[in-house]
Amino acid sequence: MTKTPARAPFAYDGLDRAIHEKARLGVLTSLMAHPAGLTFVDLKHLCGLTDGNLSRHLQVLQEAGMVEIIKGYERNRPLTQCRLTPAGRQRFLDYLAVLEQVVRDAAAAAREGSSGGSAEEAPSAESLRLHTA
Amino acid sequence: MTKTPARAPFAYDGLDRAIHEKARLGVLTSLMAHPAGLTFVDLKHLCGLTDGNLSRHLQVLQEAGMVEIIKGYERNRPLTQCRLTPAGRQRFLDYLAVLEQVVRDAAAAAREGSSGGSAEEAPSAESLRLHTA
Repeated sequence: MTKTPARAPFAYDGLDRAIHEKARLGVLTSLMAHPAGLTFVDLKHLCGLTDGNLSRHLQVLQEAGMVEIIKGYERNRPLTQCRLTPAGRQRFLDYLAVLEQVVRDAAAAAREGSSGGSAEEAPSAESLRLHTA
Repeated sequence: MTKTPARAPFAYDGLDRAIHEKARLGVLTSLMAHPAGLTFVDLKHLCGLTDGNLSRHLQVLQEAGMVEIIKGYERNRPLTQCRLTPAGRQRFLDYLAVLEQVVRDAAAAAREGSSGGSAEEAPSAESLRLHTA
């Protein structure tokens, strides 16, 4: 196990590699909103993924114990259901707390970095509009 | 160019691959806070990276035009300075707006998903504490 030096405020060790992948972030967010599960087809559309890509990412999440895949039938046709496990849900919530910290740190950095900069730079930092709905 | 179907709310195409990597997120946040630049050594400590890892990630960011590396000397010793380019700064701000959207979507999903769930699940969603400083 590698240890991060104590003074590495921007190491972000909590950004779990199983989760911190663009497509998997979409898959987990979709499943978080549907605790009863989603079909493979619905998930594919919500995340804008191909069959192959979704299969690959679901496999990573299943191996990590975050997602369960239930293969069944409905009216004699195969139907695959995907569901977040309780451990997966908790791990995703933990990850999100770190992600929120990244957004907060970067917004603070943008403010800090632009305070000594040109007038032109200031609106970019403002455009983040952190903490407004 | 691949096009995301119109109804793929969780595709997150804006999560730029050059930026969306744990170590590079730390590097960019550090540089954002120091627009005048940081030395290689300072950056390494802020991000908890090895020389080899930092070099590799800086190369990716330099090739993407986001970071400039200035190799010089101070008191006859080599000194490498790293700085965010104006384009890099803007691209990072654009990325951060998408990242903030991910956090917002996931927090909404956690609330939505737990409203029909057990009482045990509710505090987890609450623990995100989105939009509080």
